[in-house]
Amino acid sequence: MTTTNTDPAVADLLAFLKFPSVSTDPARAGDVRDCAGWVANKLRAIGLLAEVHDTAGHPVVLGRSTPHRADLPTVLIYGHYDVQPADPLDLWHTPPFEPRIENGVVFARGATDNKGQILAHIRGVEAALLGTSANGFPELPVNVIFLIEGEEEIGSPNLEPFLREHREELQCDVIAISDTTMVGTAIPTFTYCLRGLTALEVHVTGPAMDLHSGIFGGAVANPATALARLLASLHDADGHVAVAGFYDAVQPLADWEREAWKALPLNDEHALLALTGASATFGEAGFTSIERFSARPTAEINGFASGYQGEGSKTIIPAKASAKLTFRLVPDQDPAKIQALVTEHLFTHCPPGVKLDVVPGHSGRPYACDPHSAFGQAAQRALRHTFPGKEPALIREGGSIPIVTTFREVLGVETLLLGLALPDCRAHSPNENFPLANYFAGIRLNQVLLREIGATKR
Amino acid sequence: MTTTNTDPAVADLLAFLKFPSVSTDPARAGDVRDCAGWVANKLRAIGLLAEVHDTAGHPVVLGRSTPHRADLPTVLIYGHYDVQPADPLDLWHTPPFEPRIENGVVFARGATDNKGQILAHIRGVEAALLGTSANGFPELPVNVIFLIEGEEEIGSPNLEPFLREHREELQCDVIAISDTTMVGTAIPTFTYCLRGLTALEVHVTGPAMDLHSGIFGGAVANPATALARLLASLHDADGHVAVAGFYDAVQPLADWEREAWKALPLNDEHALLALTGASATFGEAGFTSIERFSARPTAEINGFASGYQGEGSKTIIPAKASAKLTFRLVPDQDPAKIQALVTEHLFTHCPPGVKLDVVPGHSGRPYACDPHSAFGQAAQRALRHTFPGKEPALIREGGSIPIVTTFREVLGVETLLLGLALPDCRAHSPNENFPLANYFAGIRLNQVLLREIGATKR
Repeated sequence: MTTTNTDPAVADLLAFLKFPSVSTDPARAGDVRDCAGWVANKLRAIGLLAEVHDTAGHPVVLGRSTPHRADLPTVLIYGHYDVQPADPLDLWHTPPFEPRIENGVVFARGATDNKGQILAHIRGVEAALLGTSANGFPELPVNVIFLIEGEEEIGSPNLEPFLREHREELQCDVIAISDTTMVGTAIPTFTYCLRGLTALEVHVTGPAMDLHSGIFGGAVANPATALARLLASLHDADGHVAVAGFYDAVQPLADWEREAWKALPLNDEHALLALTGASATFGEAGFTSIERFSARPTAEINGFASGYQGEGSKTIIPAKASAKLTFRLVPDQDPAKIQALVTEHLFTHCPPGVKLDVVPGHSGRPYACDPHSAFGQAAQRALRHTFPGKEPALIREGGSIPIVTTFREVLGVETLLLGLALPDCRAHSPNENFPLANYFAGIRLNQVLLREIGATKR
Repeated sequence: MTTTNTDPAVADLLAFLKFPSVSTDPARAGDVRDCAGWVANKLRAIGLLAEVHDTAGHPVVLGRSTPHRADLPTVLIYGHYDVQPADPLDLWHTPPFEPRIENGVVFARGATDNKGQILAHIRGVEAALLGTSANGFPELPVNVIFLIEGEEEIGSPNLEPFLREHREELQCDVIAISDTTMVGTAIPTFTYCLRGLTALEVHVTGPAMDLHSGIFGGAVANPATALARLLASLHDADGHVAVAGFYDAVQPLADWEREAWKALPLNDEHALLALTGASATFGEAGFTSIERFSARPTAEINGFASGYQGEGSKTIIPAKASAKLTFRLVPDQDPAKIQALVTEHLFTHCPPGVKLDVVPGHSGRPYACDPHSAFGQAAQRALRHTFPGKEPALIREGGSIPIVTTFREVLGVETLLLGLALPDCRAHSPNENFPLANYFAGIRLNQVLLREIGATKR
C-alpha cells in the first residue's frame, strides 16, 4: 500500500471496489443491492438527494442536486456500479474484490469498468460543491442528475422502462459518461461513436447421451463436430464475417477518420501486440487494426463447451455442444436484423443429424454523434483544460454502451463520452486496474466539465 | 433389489462394481489398487494361484491353474478391472458406484465394460473346477492363465513391458477376451476384427489473457474461432475424414462381409436411432451405418472447451481453446502414421494469429484374425452350445482393444473375442448396465469354451 491510501478519494474508491457486484450471477444479487446502497449514501454524503429504485432486476440509484435552478443547463451523469464476473480467478495476482494499490495503480474487478470512472464524476461534483479546488467554484454551475445502474454488464434490460417511467424527472440537456478509453496515457480523448452488440447462444444436441466412440463412432453425427463446422462458417479465410447480408447496412469510414487514426498510439501494431499478448494481429482484410477494433463489425466466440474436459481422455461422442457468441455492430446495423440474419445462417449451415437451438441474448444499437456540437465543444474545452497542451483525440470506440441510443430515443439528448480508462486497464479481464492518476484527472475533468457545460448556450 | 441378489454370483458382481477403479483419475489410484486386490483374492478363492504385480502405473493381476499340465492346451483369459470416468454424474439415475439391479439388469460404471464380462470368465472357470455344472466337468480340460489389468481405459501403457517381462510364464495357445458386444439379445457373436485408435489433444492459444471483445474484437485472432476452423477442417461435407493420406492404408471391405452384415439387427436404422437417441444417422457417404461404426475409420471430437461457460454472457475474446480428439483406425492403418498426418494437417490448416500445440495421446493398432481357424471354430461351437439353435454372427467391432495386437506380437497367438455386452449396455456412458442373463450366459459360455479348446488339436 502507498501513502495515497490515506487520501479520502482513494479510501472511497477502495470501499466501492470491495463489493462483488457481479450482475450476471444470481448468487451475487445481495452484493449488488448492497453496492447500490453504498452509492446512494455516497451521493447523499456530498449533498445530493439520492434514492435506490427497485426494478425487475438490480436497483437503479438516482441522485440530483437541489434546489433545481431553471436558469441553468442540466447534465445527467450516467454510470454503472455492477461489474463483470471475475473468473478465471486463478489468473488474478490478488483477489478481485480485495483492491490492491501498486505503483499508483488500483487492481480490482470494476476498477476501471466502471467504478473508478463513475466515482471520479461523483467526486468531481463534490469538489465543485465544496468549492475547495484550485479552480474555486463556490457552487454548481449546472443542475446535476446522477443515474447509476446495476445491470450494464448484462445489457441494461430494465433501464429503458425505468427511463420511460422517470422521464420527467430525468429531463436534461446533455448526458456525460466516462466508460470509454483514452488512446494513451494523459492523451485527452473524446469518443463520438460506439459499436453496438447482439448476443446469442448456440446449442447443438445429438445423441440422447454421451456415446462410446468405438461402438457408435462414424454412424451418428458428433454435436461437437457439427458446432465446430457452424462456428467455422461464421468467417471466411480473410476474416470477413460470412453471414449473408451482415455488412449491408454498414456505413463506410470517412477519409478524415482513417487519416486521423493513423496518428493514434494504437496504430502501432507492436503496441497492440504488447497490450494483448497476441502473437500477431489478425482481422478483416483491407482494414488497419484500429479500424478493425473500433469501426468495423465483428463476430466473436466468447466461449464454447462440449463433452469431456477433465484429466486424461474419454472416448465418447458427446451428447451436446454449445457456444456463446457476440456480434459487435457499427452504424447503421440493426441488432434485431443481425440476430435474424445470423440465426438464418446457422440453420442454413447446420450439418445433418443434429438438433440446433439458437437462443437470442441481449442487444444494443451502435451509436454515433457529432463531436463538434455546442456541448461537444464544451467537452473538448474541458479536456484541453485538464490536459494542458494536448489536443483531444477524436475516436470511435469498439465497446458498446447500448444505453446511449436509448437516451437519445427516450430523453432526446446526446451523450458526451469522456473516457478515463487506458487500453491496458484490462476491463473484463483478470487483473483489471485503474491508475490513480487517471482517477484524479477524472475528478478535475468532471469539475471543469460542469463549468464548461454551464457556460454553454442551450 | 430382486431375489437374484442372494445368488453368490450376483453378490460377487455387486462387490466388484463397488470399487470406483477409474484409471484415468490420479485421485482414484488407491481405489484402483484395492480393486486389484479384490480380483486377486477372488482368483485365489476359486483355487488358482494369483498375485498382484506392480507396474509403473496401476497393478496387473495374474492368476493360473495349478499344476500346469503340459499335455493340455493353455488359454490365457484377458480382462480389465479399471473403468471409465463416471461423469456427467447428474445423468446417472443412481450413483455409478452403488450398483443397482432393476428388472434383471445391473446398473453401475463398469457393469459391462469390463467387470461383468471378466467375472463371467472367472466364474466359468470356477464352475468347471467345481464340476458342479450340468455339463459335469470334474477338472479343467485346459491350463488357464488370467491376466487382468488396470489400465485398459487409458491405453494399457504398462502392459506391453509387463508382457515382455513375463513372457515365459504367459506362454499360451490362444487368448480369450469378453470385452466386445453381441449384435442383439441372445445372438451368439464372434468378433474377428477391431478398430484401432489414436488420441491427441489440440491447444490453441491467442492473447495472453481473456480480452474485452469490444475493445479488441476484430483486431486479434480469437482462439475459439481458430480451433473451430481447425476442427471443421477434419471432415468434408460428406462425412469423409479430410486429412490427406488418412485412407491410404485402409483395406476395402470384402463382399461377403457387406452382405452378411445386412442381416444384423443394427442394419435397421430405426434400431440404431432408438439406441443412441440421435435424430438421424450420419456418416461417411457410400457406407451403411454398420460399416461406418465397425469397419470404417473415424475422426471424433471427444470434448472441447474455451472461454466463458457459466451463467449469462461474458463479452470476451478467450485467451485459449482446446479439444480432445480420437481417431478410430481399421486394418492396415498405422496409429503413428495417422498421428503424423493429423498433426501435419492441423499445422497446415491453423489460421494465422494463434499458437498451436498438438499433444499426442495413447494409440492402439487395429486387429483382424481368421474366424475359421481351429480355435475360432472351437469358439463358434461353444457359442452354438450356449445359445442353442442360433448360428454365431461374425462381425467386426468398432471399439478398440489395442492389447490384442500386442498379444500377437509378444506371445505369438490370436485372440478369440467373445463379447457378452449388448448394444444398449451404455459402456462409457451414464447408466452403464449389464443384464444378469448375459452374465449367466457368459459363465456357461466360458465353461463350455474351456472344453472346446481342450478338445482342439494344437
